[in-house]
Parts: sequence; structure tokens; C-alpha cells
Amino acid sequence: MCAIVGVYGSKNASKVAYYSLFAMQHRGQESTGISSADDEKIHLIKARGLVTEVFDDDAFKVLTGSCAIGHNRYSTAGDDSVLDAQPVFARYKLGEISVAHNGNLVNKYEVRNELIDKGAIFQTGMDTENIVHLIAKSQKDSLIDRIKDMITKIEGAYCLAIQSRTKMFVIRDRFGIRPLSLGRLADGGWIVASETCAFDLVGAEFIRDVEPGEMLVFEEGQEPQSEKLFEADYHPCAFEYIYFARPDSIIDGKNVYQKRLEMGRRLAQESPAEVDLVLPVPDSGVAAARGYAEGLGVPFEMGIVRNHYVGRTFIEPTQEIRDLKVKLKLSPVKHLIEGKRIAIIDDSLVRGTTSKQIVKMLIEAGAKEVHMRIAAPEIKYPCRYGIDTPTQAELISASHSVEEIAKKIGATSLGFLSIEGLKESLGTDRNYSLVSFDGEYFAGGNADSPGCCSSES
Amino acid sequence: MCAIVGVYGSKNASKVAYYSLFAMQHRGQESTGISSADDEKIHLIKARGLVTEVFDDDAFKVLTGSCAIGHNRYSTAGDDSVLDAQPVFARYKLGEISVAHNGNLVNKYEVRNELIDKGAIFQTGMDTENIVHLIAKSQKDSLIDRIKDMITKIEGAYCLAIQSRTKMFVIRDRFGIRPLSLGRLADGGWIVASETCAFDLVGAEFIRDVEPGEMLVFEEGQEPQSEKLFEADYHPCAFEYIYFARPDSIIDGKNVYQKRLEMGRRLAQESPAEVDLVLPVPDSGVAAARGYAEGLGVPFEMGIVRNHYVGRTFIEPTQEIRDLKVKLKLSPVKHLIEGKRIAIIDDSLVRGTTSKQIVKMLIEAGAKEVHMRIAAPEIKYPCRYGIDTPTQAELISASHSVEEIAKKIGATSLGFLSIEGLKESLGTDRNYSLVSFDGEYFAGGNADSPGCCSSES
Amino acid sequence: MCAIVGVYGSKNASKVAYYSLFAMQHRGQESTGISSADDEKIHLIKARGLVTEVFDDDAFKVLTGSCAIGHNRYSTAGDDSVLDAQPVFARYKLGEISVAHNGNLVNKYEVRNELIDKGAIFQTGMDTENIVHLIAKSQKDSLIDRIKDMITKIEGAYCLAIQSRTKMFVIRDRFGIRPLSLGRLADGGWIVASETCAFDLVGAEFIRDVEPGEMLVFEEGQEPQSEKLFEADYHPCAFEYIYFARPDSIIDGKNVYQKRLEMGRRLAQESPAEVDLVLPVPDSGVAAARGYAEGLGVPFEMGIVRNHYVGRTFIEPTQEIRDLKVKLKLSPVKHLIEGKRIAIIDDSLVRGTTSKQIVKMLIEAGAKEVHMRIAAPEIKYPCRYGIDTPTQAELISASHSVEEIAKKIGATSLGFLSIEGLKESLGTDRNYSLVSFDGEYFAGGNADSPGCCSSES
Amino acid sequence: MCAIVGVYGSKNASKVAYYSLFAMQHRGQESTGISSADDEKIHLIKARGLVTEVFDDDAFKVLTGSCAIGHNRYSTAGDDSVLDAQPVFARYKLGEISVAHNGNLVNKYEVRNELIDKGAIFQTGMDTENIVHLIAKSQKDSLIDRIKDMITKIEGAYCLAIQSRTKMFVIRDRFGIRPLSLGRLADGGWIVASETCAFDLVGAEFIRDVEPGEMLVFEEGQEPQSEKLFEADYHPCAFEYIYFARPDSIIDGKNVYQKRLEMGRRLAQESPAEVDLVLPVPDSGVAAARGYAEGLGVPFEMGIVRNHYVGRTFIEPTQEIRDLKVKLKLSPVKHLIEGKRIAIIDDSLVRGTTSKQIVKMLIEAGAKEVHMRIAAPEIKYPCRYGIDTPTQAELISASHSVEEIAKKIGATSLGFLSIEGLKESLGTDRNYSLVSFDGEYFAGGNADSPGCCSSES
Repeated sequence: MCAIVGVYGSKNASKVAYYSLFAMQHRGQESTGISSADDEKIHLIKARGLVTEVFDDDAFKVLTGSCAIGHNRYSTAGDDSVLDAQPVFARYKLGEISVAHNGNLVNKYEVRNELIDKGAIFQTGMDTENIVHLIAKSQKDSLIDRIKDMITKIEGAYCLAIQSRTKMFVIRDRFGIRPLSLGRLADGGWIVASETCAFDLVGAEFIRDVEPGEMLVFEEGQEPQSEKLFEADYHPCAFEYIYFARPDSIIDGKNVYQKRLEMGRRLAQESPAEVDLVLPVPDSGVAAARGYAEGLGVPFEMGIVRNHYVGRTFIEPTQEIRDLKVKLKLSPVKHLIEGKRIAIIDDSLVRGTTSKQIVKMLIEAGAKEVHMRIAAPEIKYPCRYGIDTPTQAELISASHSVEEIAKKIGATSLGFLSIEGLKESLGTDRNYSLVSFDGEYFAGGNADSPGCCSSES
Repeated sequence: MCAIVGVYGSKNASKVAYYSLFAMQHRGQESTGISSADDEKIHLIKARGLVTEVFDDDAFKVLTGSCAIGHNRYSTAGDDSVLDAQPVFARYKLGEISVAHNGNLVNKYEVRNELIDKGAIFQTGMDTENIVHLIAKSQKDSLIDRIKDMITKIEGAYCLAIQSRTKMFVIRDRFGIRPLSLGRLADGGWIVASETCAFDLVGAEFIRDVEPGEMLVFEEGQEPQSEKLFEADYHPCAFEYIYFARPDSIIDGKNVYQKRLEMGRRLAQESPAEVDLVLPVPDSGVAAARGYAEGLGVPFEMGIVRNHYVGRTFIEPTQEIRDLKVKLKLSPVKHLIEGKRIAIIDDSLVRGTTSKQIVKMLIEAGAKEVHMRIAAPEIKYPCRYGIDTPTQAELISASHSVEEIAKKIGATSLGFLSIEGLKESLGTDRNYSLVSFDGEYFAGGNADSPGCCSSES
Repeated sequence: MCAIVGVYGSKNASKVAYYSLFAMQHRGQESTGISSADDEKIHLIKARGLVTEVFDDDAFKVLTGSCAIGHNRYSTAGDDSVLDAQPVFARYKLGEISVAHNGNLVNKYEVRNELIDKGAIFQTGMDTENIVHLIAKSQKDSLIDRIKDMITKIEGAYCLAIQSRTKMFVIRDRFGIRPLSLGRLADGGWIVASETCAFDLVGAEFIRDVEPGEMLVFEEGQEPQSEKLFEADYHPCAFEYIYFARPDSIIDGKNVYQKRLEMGRRLAQESPAEVDLVLPVPDSGVAAARGYAEGLGVPFEMGIVRNHYVGRTFIEPTQEIRDLKVKLKLSPVKHLIEGKRIAIIDDSLVRGTTSKQIVKMLIEAGAKEVHMRIAAPEIKYPCRYGIDTPTQAELISASHSVEEIAKKIGATSLGFLSIEGLKESLGTDRNYSLVSFDGEYFAGGNADSPGCCSSES
Repeated sequence: MCAIVGVYGSKNASKVAYYSLFAMQHRGQESTGISSADDEKIHLIKARGLVTEVFDDDAFKVLTGSCAIGHNRYSTAGDDSVLDAQPVFARYKLGEISVAHNGNLVNKYEVRNELIDKGAIFQTGMDTENIVHLIAKSQKDSLIDRIKDMITKIEGAYCLAIQSRTKMFVIRDRFGIRPLSLGRLADGGWIVASETCAFDLVGAEFIRDVEPGEMLVFEEGQEPQSEKLFEADYHPCAFEYIYFARPDSIIDGKNVYQKRLEMGRRLAQESPAEVDLVLPVPDSGVAAARGYAEGLGVPFEMGIVRNHYVGRTFIEPTQEIRDLKVKLKLSPVKHLIEGKRIAIIDDSLVRGTTSKQIVKMLIEAGAKEVHMRIAAPEIKYPCRYGIDTPTQAELISASHSVEEIAKKIGATSLGFLSIEGLKESLGTDRNYSLVSFDGEYFAGGNADSPGCCSSES
């Protein structure tokens, strides 16, 4: 997942970036950072932790200037994660630069190895460092030309905010896999953010989506200049609608909550169940469950309560307190469930471990039958465009039939939305990226650095 | 609100108390504490902050012993709050004692002044200190007799867990205003907690509610001994069902979620609205909104998204980012709302300030009409049995008609559940405490130390 | 040890208290606190930690008013030390009160038990709570009369700063065991502090010592009023000169550094050694070592380096890194020591464990002979007037001859200052409290609640 | 300043590095870091703060392996210092590498600009990044050959510890400006550290200094292999003896404390003063003051007390509390000073601001005369080999005569050690680096990237 934000020409640039990252905290909780530029210098603060933990009043004394970019990071692979936070800052031939990146470069190892072969060093594990290197290595005279040069060398999913001391560049890859929107602040400044929910919080007006293949250049005293870097080959990621994005966000003109509702309704047609009650797995399954219940004409209830106080660190539970990990987060309303035939709606099923625990929880709460329905197709393939995703071996649907999985997780029945159903729910006006479901890579063409955006954690 | 827990005869007493307090975090987030007894000594750790913040692995090295009591505190009046955490520990004539208290003593100032007149000192602002003093001042020879003596001198709402080095005493006032339940742990230990959701997390079996006027005495090698201290005059607090308790808890045999559903259904009968969509104010309004939508036969959606990452401290927003306080927490799904007639369901209306901001938010999101419905009656009187509650002057319903309030908050229409409707929803088998609605105090008889449990924050 | 400060009539009262406590940090590092009064209310902040850790800018927004009292606490007995910080605040019959106390009440258990018998509760382990209780229990009408009443009931060593919402009372016991001085701030305010080094930091002018048996009353618009509560029976504690106080402080008109110099000179006469070099154990042994070296006419060097970065928590050393505890603090300059006969001067010898490690360290550094000299007499008796001090069984001099101890610690020779020598060094104008050396209690007359102020840690 | 440590072949490598960095904390307090290698991977933890603050038990679970290198950083220029901590880690063509560097590359900007011209990016402001880049850019096949290649491209002062997954390389520049010693641990492992005081703490045996121009290669199963990279042109930095190093350290076979003693004795010959008392500025002036007092035959006293509790953050003092910065650290023993003619000995005089405050403090304490003596020559030139040092314009001796400075700082008289006197005190067997005093650069030959190691802070 991850989130980026770029703010230009606002007298509160770094604070606007801060609130925007706060609104997009659901896209990444591991680390966060903001850099700002005040013509003289780029300032940077980044660290592990939530937005509300990393920044304090003193931070904004450092983060001066009318341009700021920021980033929320979803997760990191290694144990040395002090380094793996964005934006990435560097001094290079043309001065100072800072880069925030949301996406996944499918040719990152090729590029990195080529750069390393030529003598580059990589201080982190992030592919953002590739981008900075490619800009620095370019022989072009201006930053804008170097950025264009860099763009020709990277493949995959990317949304970029790049900041020099005076300008800001925003780029969305030609596939448009990750979302990116443009808005305008009340003080006349411009904002670009991964999700429109950021605009709502900072009071920005939504202008339009950044186009696939488009670059926006922000310069003092000018409107943002648009340049088409590539012919668009639009493949927005279906997972944004399935569970990445916040329900109040609008991606590609389509509201996330409503798309989930439609997926739920379709699921009711495709995979109905004779049940007394429909429950969502909170919070991402709520809208789909609403649609499913509506489709079946069966009552919907928020029958699983989510604990909002789950912190980062927990005292090790004793042997007497078992199955605690799911129970710390989710708790069933027994009175609703007892003696009932339940349909439980989740947004996806990856490894099956959480689903198993949820089914068990419902049965212990007295459910007579537990029909699990997934408001997405079976995830059979890892996805090259995602970050930190399971391998194919971990994907239970890659090697098991629906019936086998139902048995494994203990559900009375199990049903998935069909690929066709997903497509029609999202709208046939777009060729959504459905790699995880159908294995069809629309770019590059091989799957040797795979990964699937789904994650159960 | 506040929450208490008592654990007796468990080899993991303090950890069970910890998880129970975690499950009951919604009842109080200001401070928390646990004391434990190991025959030799009572150990105590308490501080400001959430359960997951205050306790770490080292804490459980200190909190040894097979008996532990704990407390979550809702709020404190003053600025010196390092002192205002529970349990309250003291050395007194018979040894060491620790007390955790959930409730509000209506005669606390009288008792405190009388104690102070006789030379007592009060180091905190908590009425729990009254209780410790009264036990210490009693002339009786045994702790149990002193506790009984103390009980004759306090009036109001109270659930108490009292711990000596070897025993635990649990008491619920005769009105049973605050909930308190008894459960049994898998290792044979006993647990008493304000809400049954604590039992679900620690894997305890629900045994029964502690009776109004009942004292339970826990001693080594014995079953809990029950003693009736008072004839019960049962007046459970309606606000527990309205919004204090977690929806999965069972109070007095009645599930909170289901009671809220019924209140919503009744509200639909009493105060219907011609709307296209019913939305809850999350999370406490969810079940009532479901009932209201069902009653009207109108769609229900989770059309307001709650941000789960709201932290303790926020960077001061700039003037450009207005109305941020509500927007940081709640965000509307515009696509659902645009052009619609909306019914928005909240659990109560106290000062009207939050309601006003929510109505404004919905209108800005494009709602054509906003019909606010409150799944509780008008709060016209402060409540003596609650803590840290507004004065009558702050209660908007005390001085304004429903129409006037509707106008003030900008709603197209406004409706409340009737007192009769509330009573019937909760069940006519009980005389619920409805002081805030009808002003009728069932004990003591005067209202000179008033307070209402409602709080909008 | 411990330290108190009281500030009255200064517009920066709590900040002056803060800097004063900082200057007296050597008297107590476990916890610290400041309370302030602004006519309406007493405010209090106290916690574990150093002065620079506990207070931040926000603290001084709370600690308003022109009167403040503060305390540094040396140590606490139990594990529940969140409670054992001063000042102690209480509401009592006449209003609010806050008390800071440096000393040790020899009849504290008697008083506490009597209070407990009458129904009092004790929430901490500090005898300061006794004082608050005695004031609260008094039948007198005014605070000043209650304080006088209280004073008749406590015995032992005490310096008190007592604060109501509008006044401050400062009292020194009739024996004058602990130091207490009066100074005047540049802004006209008054300051009372345990050591004059506090005055130097805050730019206060030293006025005079508070007299033994004297009470000073500070009231708005008046000079401090002095009242003699007792006929003085002056027995200042010799340990203040031996090692409690900072060398730049002046106690009873005598500078601490100079008194240590004189003790060292006298020790050279009484217990000379044929050595090549005199070294101090830093920092408390420095001045005495200078005097000893001068007396012998032998070079003095700072041949043991003290590490200033010793923090609170250390990673557990591995088995390979032995004897680390002393080595983390102290490190010998081998080149100075190699092949030399060394006299090493310490301020006292209690259990002998640290001395043993220092001797070993010097021998490993190449010392040919190590003659240990203690600039104080043998500690044979516990002291009733000190806090947290070893029992007689722990005092190595109580059960071993000088020769036996020398052998145990591995020193070539060992010598102590004689009691007579100490008396003459300090000055025969005073009857110093020498209980630890001669066992003669000057007040009360029995030694059943013993304790010695010395501590090796 | 800064400090480095390298540990090879020890089962507690990272803990040994930790304790070594703790012993060398005086060389740098801003940030610290340790990387360790376990054949598979290099692990790294670094952050702002003291050694005791940055590392906890969890850190050592990450820092596995039998080889570890570490660094203490003295200071950083910018505001973005999260980045400016060492060691610097990178992935490059041959795998992973980590580098810790103590020194200053005089050609760092030339090298950096050349690297940047070729397309390199610099993520920090540290010249350590140069070193990593040069290794990565080398065309050689093995790390050792790349290191040798790199060495030919850097000039200035450097001590390096370089770590791959399996080997460690330690290099000292041919001038030997910064100290570096080799020791052996009790468990057979090897240790290299900036100062021998680290060996004393971890119980390592001093083997020998690393030679100027020498590289040591540590490989599994072998003794360290020595290789001469350059003909030595030994110019150890005089400031190590003057004030950088801890007095118990031995550099180039010469003990720091003894050298300071000799400088003080020589200063007494060259610049005597008719005084009653000699005082040091603690702690770095102590040994020289001892020598000066001995030379004059005048008493020495520790007449200025240093406060050991000075923390990182201080509450802003009020206007009433002036000159607080020096007073927070240093406090005079008035009784010793009153009415006396004082010689005060400091280790160096850079800007003169601290000296002025010390003189003022002594006069306010009653000194009749204050003769300041500096146990080093006048600092007239910035030094290219130091880090973060003042420019020539800031050096008061560069533009003022001794008499003028005496007047400016308010001293009765002022005297410096002569350059000749310094040379003879340190020993004529070496050509010490005296750039700051005589302006003669022994390498490179121009002074265009100047800097002086002295710092008054």
C-alpha cells in the first residue's frame, strides 16, 4: 500500500502534508516522513511510528517552506528499518532532491544490480533509492529532463512526488495502478495525494485524478503544468476497491464504499446462502456485507465488535489465554449469533489463517452454520505490482479448491466473487489489474519477481 | 463510566486483570492501575495512559500473587492527575488494603467533610479515598465487619473490589446502578468485572451477575461466599445500554447490541422520517441506526467513516484547517449522501455541539435533508450517580424545545425516543434509573450534588 | 539525604524551585516534585527521575503562583515507588496543604501506629505523611497553631517546608541535624534551601541559616516572621561535611570543602603512610585527599577518572566483562600508579565492598602498596536520624578491627580519622551529631529504630 | 573528535562494542551506532543520543554475529541529523559493507563533487559516505583491493573500521593524526579502539598501537594480518593530549594525564604567576593545573565544582537567572577563593567566551586577582584535520594579542604555553601536528578547507 502526498504553494505546506498523511494512515503504519523545501534547503524528518507519534510542534519549526512532500510506509522487510522510511533525500549534481514513492518497480532488482555494477551504493532496501540514483546518473542538464530519463528506465507501479528546493514534480505510471488525485487548498496552494480522503480533511477541493502516464510540474507563480509522458494503458488496481482504500475515497471517479456495496450485491447473486443473518468482518468487509445482505434480503448486523485500543506492544499472553491475537481485535456479539445460520463477509482470503479463527469464534459464539463469503475472487497468483506480498506457496487458493478451503477453515460453505462479477461490479469501462486472480500481467510479461498485494495481517 | 476488575485464585492474576482492563478500555482512557497481593504485601502500579501504555513486562514482575484488582479511569477534574488513578492503596490498622471503585457516591462531600472535620486528610479528589477512610475509621475488629460498617455510610452508585493481602471483597450497591458480573477462569480462578466482554477475552465462563446489595468474599480454598448486605432496590442505569457498554456485553441478562436495536426500532415507530438512507454516528449509534432503518424499511449504510488512528496529541491546526476536531474522527462517504434525504442516528444529545458539526458535515457532503434521531430521551436533568457530567445549564434539552434544538444544530428535523419507549425497549421487568430523563431520584431524594453521565466528547 | 526548597513571593517561584532542586540533585536522584500555590489552588507535579527529566515547559504552565516548594528524594524502600515522591499534598479541614520534608523522624512508627490506631490511613511509606496527618488531626483553629501542635509530637531530624494556598512555613528541628538556609532573590522573593549551592545558581543572596528550633512564616506583604519553637540543642550532622553536601556549600558558616581539607590534614597526622602518591576516590574524597597529601608532603593526583555518562540502565554485562559495576564509574590512570606506593582516600567505609574493589583495581593497575585512609572515624553504630541506612550487622566496623578490615579489603594498611580528630577538624564550637561513630544519641535516648546515614552506593 | 571501535572474533562482539563506546562517550555525545555481521547479513542500529540511551536489550537481539563495529559522533552540522549517524551501511557490487570513520578528509568536497559529477548521490553530510562510494566505484575485484584503491583517493585524518559480512578491515592514515590501538579480549577476540580506556573497561589486553599507514585485516581463523599501505609520516594530533582523550588513555605509548602534568609544569616555568592558589577548570584542566601548582610550589585545590547532572534539555531560564549556562555546569567554592590571588588553568582558549564567564565567576566569588593560564599555545589557525571547528575569524588569538585577550576576558593576567614548551612536554621523538598553533600543514599544503579541532562548548 503506502501513501504519498505533495503540497505546493501553501503557507502551511508541512502541516497540510501532516494532516493528509494522518487521513491516509490506513495505507501504512510502519514509518512516516515529511520533507519540505524553502528555496535554500530541503528539510527532512522521518522515523518509525504513526503520523501522530513522529511529528511534534518542534518538527514544524524545522519543516519550513511552501512545498512539502510526505509518505506513509506500510511495512519493511528487514530488521534494520531505521533506514527504510521515506521520503529519500539526496544531494546530487543539480543540488538537493527528495523523493516519495508509492508502488512497486517490477524491474527493481535489474535496475539496482545494473546501478550497483556501475558502482552505485544502496543504503536502504527501498526501490525509491533506484529512482534517486537514476535521476542522479542521467546526463541531462535539467532536473525535469533527468526525471523523464529516469522514467524510461523503470517499470511497474509508481506514483511519485519529487521535490527540489523550488519545484515539485508528480508522476503517475502509465498503467495508473495506484491512485493519485489533484486538489486545491483554500489558500490557493496545490495538493496531490494517494486518496481523496486527505482532501476532505484539509479542506481541499478535488480537481481531478492525475492521469496515467501524466507528469505535473509545480513551479512558483504558475499553474501546475501537465505533460503526457506516456500513452496511458490504464489498469487501476482492483484491490484499491477491494480493501486498500478508505470507503470515503473516490478513485477514478468511483466511490470505494459504493463499489464494495456492488460487489456484495453481486456476490449475493453468484453465491447465495440460506442464512438468518449477514455479518461483516470489520471494518473492510462492512460495505460488501451490506450489499450481500441486501441482495439476499436477509438482516445485516455489526455482529463482530472491533477493539479500537489495540496498541503496538502487548504483554505476552499466558498459555491460559489462547487464540488471543484475533480476540484482541475482534469480539462477537453472542446474542445475535446464537442458534443462527450466519453469513460472514470478508474482503479477501489469502492464507486462510485469520478466516479459520473467525469461523471458530462464530461457532463458539453459538452459530449453527457459518457460511463464509469473500467479496473478491480467489487469489491464485502473486502480484508483481504490490509490496511485501505473499509468495504463491502461501496463497491457499493457488493449491486448494473452494471446498477444500471451506473444510480447512471449518466453514459450512465458502464462496468467492467471480472474476466476471468483480469486473462488472467495478465497471467495464476500465481494464482493471486482476493479476492476483487471473495471473495475466499486462506489462513486462513475466512473473519472476512476484508478489501479491493481499495481506491478512 | 470507569471499569473495575477483580481476579482471585489465578496463577496469572495480574495478567488476567490486564487483559480484562484492555477489553474494558472503552469505559475509561485517562488512567489505569492494577494492584496485586501475594500474602506478604500488596503491590501497585498505576499511571496516566491506556492499559497498553502503562503496563510492560517489568510491571508483571512486580505484580505477583494470585489476587489482583484493577481499574480504568474515565476522567479527572483537576490538573494534578498524577494522583487521581486507582486502585487506592493504604496501610491501616489491620494491615494493607487496596480499593477499586466504579461509581459515584452521592453523599461524598458530606462524608468527606465529616471525615475532614474529624482530622482526616484527602490526598486525591477521588471518592474512593472516602471508602478507604471509612474502613480505616471503623471500630470493628475484622476487615469484613469494617467493610459492612463502611457500606452503611455511603450512598449512591458503587461497584467495589477491595483487596487485603489474602482476601478479596466485591460489592455492588443495592440499586445495581453500575453492572458487575462474576465469571470463572479456565485455571479455576474467579473473576469479577464491570462488563462481560472482559470474560470473553480472557476465556472466562460467565457465572452470573453480582446481585444488587450483594457482597462476595473470596478466601483461599473456598468458593466465593455471598452475603446480602441490603435488600435489592434494582435500578440499573439505562445509559449502560444507551452507550456506555460495549455492544457484545451482557448486562442483567440483556445484550447491549440487541437493546440498542430495539431502541432504534421503537424510535422508528415514534419518530419516523421520510428519508432515503439511515446512517449511524459510529460506533455507538450503529445498532440503533440498524433498528431504525429496519423499522422504516429504508436502507442503512455505514456512511460515516471513523478514523482509528486518532492519537492523544495533535499538532495545532492552522486557521485554514477548520472544524478539524470532528473531521479528524469522522468522515462522510459523500457518494452515498449526495442528493439524499438522510436520517442520522446518535445515541444521545447533551450539549448539541457535536451534533451541530455532524449535521454541517452531512450538508457539506451534499445531503438534501438531515433528520437527526436520538435513540434516547431528552436529557433534562443532571445525574447524581455519574461522574464528571455536565451541569443542568449545559444540557441543551433542559432549556430548549426539540424544535429549538433542531434549529440550533441545523437539522431538517429532530426526534428523540420517548421515556416510555426507552422503558419498553429495555424491558418493563426492571425499574431503570432514568434520572437524566425524568429527574426522579430513587435514593436520597435531593439533587444537590448533581451530574449527568452523558458526555459528548 | 534528600533536599528541600521553598520559594515565596517570586514571580518565577516554580522555576526558582526547579533550578534549586537541580543544584541539589546530588542529595537525591530517585524522585522529585514541586508544588505551587496561586491563592486559589495548590498545584503539584511529582514523579520518579531527575529534575531535568520530570519537569518540562508544560509543567510550568501548571505550576503557577508566587509560592513553590520542592523536594528531591534520595531513595525509597519498596517497589511501589510511584507513591513515594514529595511534596505530599492533602485537603484537610482548613483547606489545602503541601509538605516537603528532609530528615528522619525517630518516632515515626510510634506516631504512625498511633494515628493508624485512631483510624488514619497511610497511602505511602514516607514519614512526611505523619506530618500531614498530625496537622490535620490537631484541634487548633489556625494552620500555624496546628503546625506548632504537630511539632510537639515528632522527634528526630527534620527540615520542613509547608505550603497553604497563601502562606509558607519553614521549620528546622531543635537539633539542627539537617542544614537549612535562608536567602533572598533578586526580584525580592525569599528562598529557603537545604544547601547554599542552590542560592549560587539562582543568584540569591545568602541571608543566614535557619536556626535550630526556628520557624519562619512567609505571608504576603510581610518580611518573614521568625518564631522560636524550641530552645536550640544544636547537633549538626557530621556527615553533611563528610560527604552529603556539595563542596561549595556553606553549612553553619563552615565551607564543606575546607572542612574536608582539614579532615585530610588531621588524618595525615593521625594515620600517616609511607607512600609515593595520594589519590582520592572521586568526587567526595577529593578535598580530604588534598589535605592528606599536603599533610604528608607527598604528591596528590586525580589518579582515578570518573565516568560522567553513567546512566540509569545498563545492558547486562556478559560473564567475560567482570567487576563492571565499579569499572563503569571509576577508571585508574595506570601510568601514575604503576610501581608506586599509593594512599587512596575515601570519605567513609560502611560495608567494605566498594573499598575492596577499588583496592583490587589499584593493584591491577600496578600499585606496589595500597594504603587506604578514611577521612572519617569507624562507623560502628546505625544512626536514627538518617534515612535508608544499613543495619548494624552490615557495618563492617561494628564487628571487625581495623586490621581485620584491611585484610578483608586487601589493603596494605588501613586508617581512620579518630573521633577526636573529626571533632577538632569540624570545630569544637559545636556538638556535632556523631552517633554513627560513638553511638551516643542526644535525643530520645534509645536506639531501637536505628539507621546510619552512610551508604556506599 | 568522534570514536570508533571494531571487534572481531568475539562471541559478544556487539556488547563489547557497546561497552567500548560507553568508555569513549567523551569523544562524542550526539549520536551512536553499532553494526554487526553474522556471515549472512549486516545488522545496524544507530540513532541520536548517548550510548546508554540508544541501545537496549532488544538491540542486542538484532546485533548478532562475532564481528561488530561502532561509532560515537561528536556533532552534526545540519538540522536533519537523523541521517548523520555512523556506521554507514551500503549494499554494493560485492555485497554488504559498513563503515565507521573518525577523522576529517581534507579533500572531501573535491572527492564528493567528483563523485557527484559522475552521478553519485549523497544521502548525508558525512565524509564517511565518500569512503563507501569510493569502495563501490573501484573496479577492483576484491574488497581489500577496492579499499586500497579508495585509500589512494582520500587525504586527511582518518581511522577506519570497515566490515563486510565476514571480514573486518582497520586502517589508520599515514600521519597517524587520530589515535587507534589494538587489543585482545579475554575470549580470544580482537578489538581496535580510538582510546585504550575502552580496553580497560572490557578487560582487553593492550597489544600495540595501529601504525600510521597500516591496515589490519581480520579474517576467520587467522591472526590479524598487517599490511603497510603507506610509509608512515607520523604527526599525532597534539590536541588528543591537550584535551580530547581521557586522562587514563595511553596514546603512542604516552599517558595523557602525565603529558598534561608536564604541560602544566612547563607552563609554570614559562608563565609563572604570583598567586595563593591554583585551580583547574574541571575536568580537562585538572592534570595541567596539578603540574602548574607543583611547578610554582603553590597549593592546588579543586576549587570549581562540576555538576554531574547536566541534562540535554533545560527549562528556559528567566531573565532573573542570568549567566546560567556556565553556572549550571560549574560552581566556585567561594571560601577557598575569597581574598586570594588565583591562577585558573584551562586546557585551551578558542573564542574566549567561556573564559570570560569563568573569570567573572571567580571575581564574584571574591578572588583578588585572576591569572588565567592556558596549558596550550595560542590557537591562531583553523585545523584541516578536525571536524566541526571554528573558522579563523572566531579564533580570538588569531586577531588579538595576549594582553588584549586578558583585557577582554577580564583576567589580571593571561599566559599560554609556548609551542616549544608544548613540543618538549609531549616529547621531541615525534613531529606532532601543531597546525592550530603554527599554521604549518604537513600534508596537502594548502589550507582551503580549514577547521580547528578546538571547541569551547
